[in-house]
Amino acid sequence: MDNNRYCVIMCGGVGSRFWPYSRANMPKQFIDFFGTGRSLLQMSVDRIKGIVPDENIIMMTNEQYAGIIAQQLPQLKPDQILLEPARRNTAPCIAWAAWHIKALNPQAQIMVAPSDHLILKTDEYRDCVNKAFEFIESNDSLLTMGIKPNRPETGYGYIQAGKNIHGDFNAVKTFTEKPNEDLARVFLKSGDFYWNSGMFFWSVDTIINAMRNNAPDIASIFDGGAQLMATDAERDFIEANYPLCRNISIDYAVMEKAPNVCVECVDFGWSDLGTWGSLYDHSEKNEQGNATQGGKALLFNSRDNIVAVKGDKLVVASGLNDYIVADTGDALLIVPKNEEQKIRNYVNEVKVQFGDKFI
Amino acid sequence: MDNNRYCVIMCGGVGSRFWPYSRANMPKQFIDFFGTGRSLLQMSVDRIKGIVPDENIIMMTNEQYAGIIAQQLPQLKPDQILLEPARRNTAPCIAWAAWHIKALNPQAQIMVAPSDHLILKTDEYRDCVNKAFEFIESNDSLLTMGIKPNRPETGYGYIQAGKNIHGDFNAVKTFTEKPNEDLARVFLKSGDFYWNSGMFFWSVDTIINAMRNNAPDIASIFDGGAQLMATDAERDFIEANYPLCRNISIDYAVMEKAPNVCVECVDFGWSDLGTWGSLYDHSEKNEQGNATQGGKALLFNSRDNIVAVKGDKLVVASGLNDYIVADTGDALLIVPKNEEQKIRNYVNEVKVQFGDKFI
Repeated sequence: MDNNRYCVIMCGGVGSRFWPYSRANMPKQFIDFFGTGRSLLQMSVDRIKGIVPDENIIMMTNEQYAGIIAQQLPQLKPDQILLEPARRNTAPCIAWAAWHIKALNPQAQIMVAPSDHLILKTDEYRDCVNKAFEFIESNDSLLTMGIKPNRPETGYGYIQAGKNIHGDFNAVKTFTEKPNEDLARVFLKSGDFYWNSGMFFWSVDTIINAMRNNAPDIASIFDGGAQLMATDAERDFIEANYPLCRNISIDYAVMEKAPNVCVECVDFGWSDLGTWGSLYDHSEKNEQGNATQGGKALLFNSRDNIVAVKGDKLVVASGLNDYIVADTGDALLIVPKNEEQKIRNYVNEVKVQFGDKFI
Repeated sequence: MDNNRYCVIMCGGVGSRFWPYSRANMPKQFIDFFGTGRSLLQMSVDRIKGIVPDENIIMMTNEQYAGIIAQQLPQLKPDQILLEPARRNTAPCIAWAAWHIKALNPQAQIMVAPSDHLILKTDEYRDCVNKAFEFIESNDSLLTMGIKPNRPETGYGYIQAGKNIHGDFNAVKTFTEKPNEDLARVFLKSGDFYWNSGMFFWSVDTIINAMRNNAPDIASIFDGGAQLMATDAERDFIEANYPLCRNISIDYAVMEKAPNVCVECVDFGWSDLGTWGSLYDHSEKNEQGNATQGGKALLFNSRDNIVAVKGDKLVVASGLNDYIVADTGDALLIVPKNEEQKIRNYVNEVKVQFGDKFI
C-alpha cells in the first residue's frame, strides 16, 4: 500500500431529503439503510481498505458528528477527524484538507469522496480508484470521476468528456449543472456525458495550485495558516479563519475554471442515494414493485411503494401507489415518490411549526 | 334511585375493525379514543350514574379483560364481572345475565348496553333511559332503542316502528338486516325506520319467558342451573354449560320472533363507533376536512383523512385523500376510508402471516 495515498471523506451533510430517517443529529451517512450492519459512512471506508492506509483517512465534518464518527470508525485517531466550525460548502472544506495534508506529507496523493453514496460493484470501484491514483501520480491533473448515465436524470450535474488521454481517462470539455429533461435525454444519447459524482483525485500540490489560481481568496486564508497546519495551533487558526471563507462548491470554485481537469469515465453501480426515490431504485422489490426496508409490510392493492420502518414494526396499507412511507417511531412520512424534492420544504415547515424536536 | 334497576354491559368484543388501535388484549371499548381521560367503557358507565346503582351494574366479558375492567372501574366488585368461558354471541350472554340477576333480585328491571358506543347528547340519553325503565316497569315488553337515522347507512340493521303506544314508544313491525343502499334510502325517506342500536330494556321475567318461548335450548341450559346462580357454584356450572349454548345473537334468537317487542324511537347523537369512518365522523376536522386524534400532523395537499397516532408523534403526509392513517408504535395502518370494512380481512391476513404478535 502506498503511504502517500490519502482519502478525504466529507461527512458533514445534514441529508434533510431523507427525513425522517435522516435527522440533524443523525444524518443519512451514519445510518445503516440496508440493514447490513454497516452505515453508508462505514461502507465508504470499508471500500478503500487496502488502497489507502487507515491512518491516511481524513474525515471532514462538524463538531456535532465527531462522537458518531469516532463510534462508527474506532480505527481512526482523533486527529484524523477535522471539525469545520461553520458550513462553507465543499471548496473551503477541500482546501483545509489539502493544506492540512500538505503539512503531514508534501508528496500526498489525495482522493476526495462523499460519505453517503452507494456503490454496488465494489471490485470495479476499487479497480477504478487504483487507476485514478496511478493517473494523478503521473499527471498534474484535477481528476473527477464521471459516472456513465443510465437514465436522463435531471437531478445531477453532467461532465462532457473531451479528448481521450488513455483508457477511461479523458480531458473535460464542459461541466453542465442539472439539465432539463430534454437536455438530459440529449446528454444520455450522445454518450459523451457523465454524471458528476463528487469524487475527486489530485496530488496535494495540484489542488493547492489550482486553489491559488482559481480561488485565491480561499487559498490565501490557508496559505496564511500553512505553518500551523497539523500542529496544536491548527484548531485556533481554523476557528478564527475558516468562517471567513466564501461559501462555494469545489465545482464552481475550481473544477469549472481550471485548465487541467480530467475525467475518469466509470460504471460501478453508483447512486448518490440523495433521495428516497434513489433508495427505492436500489432496493429489492416484490412482484408489485414494493420495496420494504426494515420491519414487515402487508400491502394490498398497492404498487411501487417504498416502505421504510425501524424495528419490528408492521405496516398494513391498501390503495397506495408510488408512495414513500417512512417511519422512525416518533415521526411518519407519507408522500408520493414524485414529491421527494419537496421533502425539504416539508421539513422546513415542521421546523417552523414544531421547532427542532423532529428535525 | 330504583334498586330494582340493573344494567348489563357487554364488553367482551375484540373490535378488530379498529385495528391497530384495538388489539386482542386491549379492544376499543377500553381505549380513550377522544383523549378525554375516559375510555368508551368508562363513559358507558358514567352515563348511567344515578339511574342504575353502581352495585347493580353487571359486566359481561371474558377472562382476558377482567383485569382491565377492574382497573378502569374500581367501583365494581369482582362478582359484578361475569366471565364468559367461550364466545357465544349476545343471546347466551344476555341469558346468563338474566338468570344471574333473577337470583339476585326477582323484581329486576334490566337495561342491556354495549360498551363501545358513542353518545353525544348525554342529557337526552339519560332522559330516554329513564323513560325506557318506566316503560318496562309497566309493560310486559321487550324494549329496544331505535335510533333516528340521519343517512342511508348500509352497515346497520333497521327496525320498522308500528302502532304507537305512547310518546316515543311503538310496537315493532319488522326487523331488517343490513339493507343495500337503495333500500336504505327508502328506509330513511319513509320515516318509519330506525337503526337497531343493540340497547335493550326488559324485566327479568319478561326476558326469561321470551327465552323459554323463542330459544328453549338456551333457556333450558340456564333453567338447569337456576339454583346455582349467584352462588359459589355458579362458576363451575358456567364453565361446564355455557360453551354448550348455541352461538346466536339476541336479535335472531328472540327479538325477531317474540310478539311483545317494542321500540323507543330516540335521537341522542349516537354512533356505534364501529369503524374508523365513524370515529372520523365524530371527530373535529380542520378546513381541509382532516381529523387528527393524538400526536401532530402536517398534511399537504390532503383532504378528508383521519390520522390517529399515539403519543407525541409527528405525521407528515402529502397527496392523501380520504384515508385512515392509524399508528400505534408497533403497527401502522394506511387504508382508504371506503375500505374500512376490509380491515378485518387485513387483520386476518396479518394473523396468517405473522401470528398473534400484532393482533
